[in-house]
Amino acid sequence: MSERIEASYLIETPFDLERACDVMAGEQSCGTFTRLAAETDELREQHAARVESIEPLEDVDSPSLPMPTRPQPPGTRYRRARVRLSWPLANCGTSLATLMATVAGNLYELKEFSGLRLLDLSVPDAFADAWPGPQFGIQGTRQLTGIDSGPLIGTIIKPSVGLSPTQTADVVAQLLEGGIDFIKDDELQANGPHNPLEARVDAVMPLVREHEQRTGRKVMVAFNISGDLDEMRRHHDYVAAAGGSCVMVAVNAVGLSGVSELRRHSALAIHGHRAGWGMLSRHPLLGIDFAAWQVFWRLVGVDHLHVNGLDNKFSESNDSVTASARACLTPLFQPPRPAHTVMPVFSSNQTACQADATWRAVGGVDDLIVTAGGGIMAHPDGIAAGVRSLRQAWQAAALGVDAAQYGREHPELARALEAFAP
Amino acid sequence: MSERIEASYLIETPFDLERACDVMAGEQSCGTFTRLAAETDELREQHAARVESIEPLEDVDSPSLPMPTRPQPPGTRYRRARVRLSWPLANCGTSLATLMATVAGNLYELKEFSGLRLLDLSVPDAFADAWPGPQFGIQGTRQLTGIDSGPLIGTIIKPSVGLSPTQTADVVAQLLEGGIDFIKDDELQANGPHNPLEARVDAVMPLVREHEQRTGRKVMVAFNISGDLDEMRRHHDYVAAAGGSCVMVAVNAVGLSGVSELRRHSALAIHGHRAGWGMLSRHPLLGIDFAAWQVFWRLVGVDHLHVNGLDNKFSESNDSVTASARACLTPLFQPPRPAHTVMPVFSSNQTACQADATWRAVGGVDDLIVTAGGGIMAHPDGIAAGVRSLRQAWQAAALGVDAAQYGREHPELARALEAFAP
Repeated sequence: MSERIEASYLIETPFDLERACDVMAGEQSCGTFTRLAAETDELREQHAARVESIEPLEDVDSPSLPMPTRPQPPGTRYRRARVRLSWPLANCGTSLATLMATVAGNLYELKEFSGLRLLDLSVPDAFADAWPGPQFGIQGTRQLTGIDSGPLIGTIIKPSVGLSPTQTADVVAQLLEGGIDFIKDDELQANGPHNPLEARVDAVMPLVREHEQRTGRKVMVAFNISGDLDEMRRHHDYVAAAGGSCVMVAVNAVGLSGVSELRRHSALAIHGHRAGWGMLSRHPLLGIDFAAWQVFWRLVGVDHLHVNGLDNKFSESNDSVTASARACLTPLFQPPRPAHTVMPVFSSNQTACQADATWRAVGGVDDLIVTAGGGIMAHPDGIAAGVRSLRQAWQAAALGVDAAQYGREHPELARALEAFAP
Repeated sequence: MSERIEASYLIETPFDLERACDVMAGEQSCGTFTRLAAETDELREQHAARVESIEPLEDVDSPSLPMPTRPQPPGTRYRRARVRLSWPLANCGTSLATLMATVAGNLYELKEFSGLRLLDLSVPDAFADAWPGPQFGIQGTRQLTGIDSGPLIGTIIKPSVGLSPTQTADVVAQLLEGGIDFIKDDELQANGPHNPLEARVDAVMPLVREHEQRTGRKVMVAFNISGDLDEMRRHHDYVAAAGGSCVMVAVNAVGLSGVSELRRHSALAIHGHRAGWGMLSRHPLLGIDFAAWQVFWRLVGVDHLHVNGLDNKFSESNDSVTASARACLTPLFQPPRPAHTVMPVFSSNQTACQADATWRAVGGVDDLIVTAGGGIMAHPDGIAAGVRSLRQAWQAAALGVDAAQYGREHPELARALEAFAP
């Protein structure tokens, strides 16, 4: 592994590609174009960002992002390219906040660009030593839940917001009875006055504990503790004291330093929700790819990260979802450090129908959390049948057996395929 | 003030506007379109987001954001509208993290939209009671620096990254000698191994203290302490112990909970840098307007917020810069709470030339920090003349005197106008 930080970008510019890349590199390190007396050759040699490669792509005839302050003459072509920049570790050390300001900071505003998106990021081994990474990750989550193989089958409590603690517990009771592995709060449901976190824990956890004593099954409930740090630590401790195994945070809303501090405090798995992700990623020529974004949260140490799902109800393509899940499952360092694995979480419109395609898309692994709403609750034979249908679909996928064929001996799967066929 | 949270959005959709707005409201509250048994009329009445108004704007013939999973037939029109949604305070209480997930969360990914941008946000008075707001703000920053009128004239230490602590101190010595009011680290310069924060404070602060003893002028230095919480608290304390008055954080990189925790710990002014802002705002049909974004950071309690500058080197228009600065200066609550004012920070390509236009753009106030690089360092008669030229330009603006005319009796201004004329 190099001692330099490397980042790849998709860019679009009406200017000469080399010149535009020099502007990027200058803006994000010593500043190339207004050279000052103090910017010696030695300083530049040691600290300037380097343009490692420029791979020209297609041209387009209109800018992807408006360029309000410098309209280009008619007929201007906008060149796209994939470029790789690198920085010495000396510039920001292993600080993730400064790394973020370096690879995803002011450069988005540069008027030389009509498109700029961070695609990928690799960091030196020093980051692996400086950051804890996930405390539980894939193996730890399996141990906490006692589920050795297959994805964790989960759901999100709905309606998203508005249930009282008692009503939440009623939903949880049905889900436990149905044999679910994983339950999570919605990202809109944290500590609102109508359903305070502690009251919800008080209502839900006795059911979870009683269920474990009765069945031996340790259902994981991700309580949404997103908030200020004192609040998150207090709520983490409350969940832990009640026998819980997981807390959830909306990572974009809480931010890097807050999630990092929670990780250092935490004895529980941290479920990372990515609410707001569309703002960072929805335009293909702006923002950040999941592959780069997840590096920060894995180093900080969340154990699970949301990746949407195949055939979801949102605007994201299946290719993008697949790439995100694979990113979570790809080691950040070579040789791999087991502690840095993170479990991808599938959600949105998921039923038994997507199991086979998902299995194949992620490369034949099932170290996943698969959350389904309607795919469980709206199964014609009820919640338990919905949960079983998902397990059966994943068994079929792992066995390489066609789902319809597997359904002949697994009626819940057959019914689900019929009910939820696209 | 209403007891509801209100947010305005610019949307674009190929669907019926009312239907699309119902999808937004549903996704961000109880979920309207897949109504569950537990979603009673009472629950909806109390917790559903409400579409308060829909103001149709122009139609366009191609989508602003790609809609990969549902291509529309040729000839489809994309309707734009300004819409206002509201939520009961009961849903998220005064949690800023949950507010963020509510008003700027999953909705960006909805496939019903080819454009969605959060424009504005207003919150009930309960938020004013729950959050500290800026500790110093405009008046406190004036007190800390002893500058009663006119903008604080400042600069950013350059090269951005690569100077040693001693080299940084050499630059600071020149700036102090030149009569500057405010000096800040670049956002790329925090605690890298080549220039650790504590070594930089050790090198810089004796000069600042000596300068104060000699001249009575309390120059504010914003040391960039962005990082993990332990690190930020330790560095804050180090700056405070050395007699400093300000710390800087890259708010997007540190995040809401981290900045909030720093605010609760802090005895110093918090200078909020917005590195990464372009990612959130550069596309006009995606992301978030500054007016909405700044609500979060003001409540959390930063004292200064960057707003770019007129005729800047980036892609942002002067109208957008003006709107951002005005947002900082507009009370969040009625009646206004003085503690919630924040000082806008102008930067990027600033010289004496923009003073008059900036003064007029922000409505005839000078409660600002104006940072200039070349506008100070590259003044033909040196740094002191550069600083004086900016002060003179702002005096002329406040007096309503034409800058060129004022320059006849103020040679530094005259030379600046000549040197930096666009």
